[in-house]
Amino acid sequence: TIDPQRLWESLMAMAEIGPTENGGSCRLALTDEDAAGRRLFMEWCEALGCTVRIDRIGNMFVRRLGRQNDLDPVGIGSHLDTQPKGGRFDGVLGVLAGLEIFRTLQDQRIVTERPLELVVWTNEEGSRFAPAMVASGTYAGRFSVESTLARRDRDGVTLGDALDNIGFAGELPVGEPRFASFFELHIEQGPVLEAAGESIGVVTGVQGMRWFDVTLSGQAAHAGPTPMHSRRDALVAAARLIDRLQAHACHDPDGDSRVTVGCLEIDAPSRNVIPGKVSLTVDLRHTVESELNALETTFEKELAAVGETFDVAVHSDRIWQSPVVHFHSGCIDAIEQAAKRHSIPYQRMMSGAGHDAVNVSRVAPTAMIFVPCRDGISHNEAEYTSPEHCAAGTQVLLEAMLERAGT
Amino acid sequence: TIDPQRLWESLMAMAEIGPTENGGSCRLALTDEDAAGRRLFMEWCEALGCTVRIDRIGNMFVRRLGRQNDLDPVGIGSHLDTQPKGGRFDGVLGVLAGLEIFRTLQDQRIVTERPLELVVWTNEEGSRFAPAMVASGTYAGRFSVESTLARRDRDGVTLGDALDNIGFAGELPVGEPRFASFFELHIEQGPVLEAAGESIGVVTGVQGMRWFDVTLSGQAAHAGPTPMHSRRDALVAAARLIDRLQAHACHDPDGDSRVTVGCLEIDAPSRNVIPGKVSLTVDLRHTVESELNALETTFEKELAAVGETFDVAVHSDRIWQSPVVHFHSGCIDAIEQAAKRHSIPYQRMMSGAGHDAVNVSRVAPTAMIFVPCRDGISHNEAEYTSPEHCAAGTQVLLEAMLERAGT
Ligand SMILES: NC(=O)NCCC(=O)O
Ligand SMILES: NC(=O)NCCC(=O)O
Repeated sequence: TIDPQRLWESLMAMAEIGPTENGGSCRLALTDEDAAGRRLFMEWCEALGCTVRIDRIGNMFVRRLGRQNDLDPVGIGSHLDTQPKGGRFDGVLGVLAGLEIFRTLQDQRIVTERPLELVVWTNEEGSRFAPAMVASGTYAGRFSVESTLARRDRDGVTLGDALDNIGFAGELPVGEPRFASFFELHIEQGPVLEAAGESIGVVTGVQGMRWFDVTLSGQAAHAGPTPMHSRRDALVAAARLIDRLQAHACHDPDGDSRVTVGCLEIDAPSRNVIPGKVSLTVDLRHTVESELNALETTFEKELAAVGETFDVAVHSDRIWQSPVVHFHSGCIDAIEQAAKRHSIPYQRMMSGAGHDAVNVSRVAPTAMIFVPCRDGISHNEAEYTSPEHCAAGTQVLLEAMLERAGT
Repeated sequence: TIDPQRLWESLMAMAEIGPTENGGSCRLALTDEDAAGRRLFMEWCEALGCTVRIDRIGNMFVRRLGRQNDLDPVGIGSHLDTQPKGGRFDGVLGVLAGLEIFRTLQDQRIVTERPLELVVWTNEEGSRFAPAMVASGTYAGRFSVESTLARRDRDGVTLGDALDNIGFAGELPVGEPRFASFFELHIEQGPVLEAAGESIGVVTGVQGMRWFDVTLSGQAAHAGPTPMHSRRDALVAAARLIDRLQAHACHDPDGDSRVTVGCLEIDAPSRNVIPGKVSLTVDLRHTVESELNALETTFEKELAAVGETFDVAVHSDRIWQSPVVHFHSGCIDAIEQAAKRHSIPYQRMMSGAGHDAVNVSRVAPTAMIFVPCRDGISHNEAEYTSPEHCAAGTQVLLEAMLERAGT
């Protein structure tokens, strides 16, 4: 069994890197803070005698040898980057649970049949470089290495340059190593487990998601003399769009549509200028692909409608989509058995958030483990998961992994 | 009579300072561009043999001596600062019309009874430092010099430091000189004159305006797993507010309510984060003070309503208000007579925009002259007023001024 105290201490030590005002973490992908977090992690791994390999897009692979090292390893892992005002557990738990597992195996001198591989994926959050999970996506062949390196943040810095700046561009070809199985432990980031009083989510799949860049172009004009009826206010059009999408998603009978506008920017904003141009992002999700299609159609319709109503030119670009994913039944079962073995209350569930495991599942048998987080709050400095839940998730991860790796 | 060609050339020369991509001007108050514009203007004035005095908040006063220099001067003028993507006429026309008038008087060796004073007011637009017209307001005793110097832009730079940086803090006490009368020529910035086919607006007053800083604080959370009904989305609340205010102002039976949200910012924006905190500005205007009160009440009610609906804490600060102003009948008549004399089609009208003349009118007999601008568009790079209209406005300004200054 793993050491809950040691796990918690690692989590709290990592949280000291890029601390935010209200007790959260800010380690945006490939910033100095991300680099400091990666270095701390590497020190811990090297202290265990493990070698760390880094691929060309900054994914880190920590190998623990097994008895049959010509076999594909069983992979575990998650990410260390965070949102601008992120929490201490999102991603970090899945990485440091892996570290705790390696430490436990070391202490107890356990050698597995297959080798093990602990992974830290680059830029999972998608906050600095869109889209989310871009590096695991590249690993899984969804994006070319070149296109990934060329992606830019809002200041125009490429992912490749950011990687070079912090010295985390490695030599390992992207796509190596392949995994016999892959498991990711993560906080739920939603309210389901807490509400049900359960400690483990056996994640059977992940909802589909689509990201859009939207612009609305009306006409800037003076706030004072311009009559209301002759305005072409891009912000008023954006506001109507947001209001309509919200209403639509809230009245969805099955309650499974998710619509979020996370970024909105006015071009050359000024108090007494009617906004002439607004850019915003739209995030659409659903657990059923056909429903997600319908949601996208609604979005396009509402966008066109506000364009007409307010005489504003509208444009939308679907910059990314991740289809609904169903995980591997063998991996799911391994997790469920581990939870049962310890009589931990669990439920099978779909994930609302995207995870690197979504991409890995395209090339290896994969499943995920969720643990509850307080009030379902994540992507927020107040994010919290109790030491007990962190430990339970790590124990289940260890056992599911051992089952697939062989002992 | 003034020289339309020379006037136009001055306007186009000033427009070269801080040019924008699409043919407009960007000379935000007290930036290097503003300073360059001020220096060009000073060179022109000094070439005429006029002395330029600058007060402690950067207002510039250019005197042309009369026959009785112990009498208060007649003032004319406007501003040289612009919006971030401003036009070439807003403010500039009123200043360079004054220059053209000084040049004309010089050419024709006309000496007035009273001295004349051409003024450039600091930070009229209110885009860099809120509120608008802050320096003429300080001149007129509405704000203390200290509070004005302490006002900050969005980067935290004080108006006083910005003034020192560009070397335009003068010695003249704020409030000097007083004017016997004051006239401001300005583009209308709205569609009324153009629609009526008239060349001159005899401005009888200015609508009241109020500025608010608003914050909406909900809870940041993950865009994926957070169900719609458990969100506290600050942007959704802001969107509903904007939509409601827009609807309210559009359904105003007399069509005189104006509501504008010019700035909106999400705290720590990220595509997959439900916005936890949004700040925005509100600009309310009306030509009737009691109606403006009613509009403010509606705004406060709608703000409280969206706070309740979306479980978001709301806060609003009224950071500025400028009451409805009625100009001086003697000055209004002087303008009307000049237009009549030349058979220029004109109408009496209220101004929708605030102007420095609003503040000056508190301490001196004041009125304003408007000329049409194409499609009523202002606070936009596309702003345009024809050479003929610029000339007509300048001629009327000259004659109204001469009437009040005596020849
Ligand atoms: N887990 C997580 O925050 N992933 C980011 C991708 C997403 O937006 O779902
Ligand atoms: N004329 C002008 O643009 N003034 C700025 C103050 C206002 O917002 O009305």
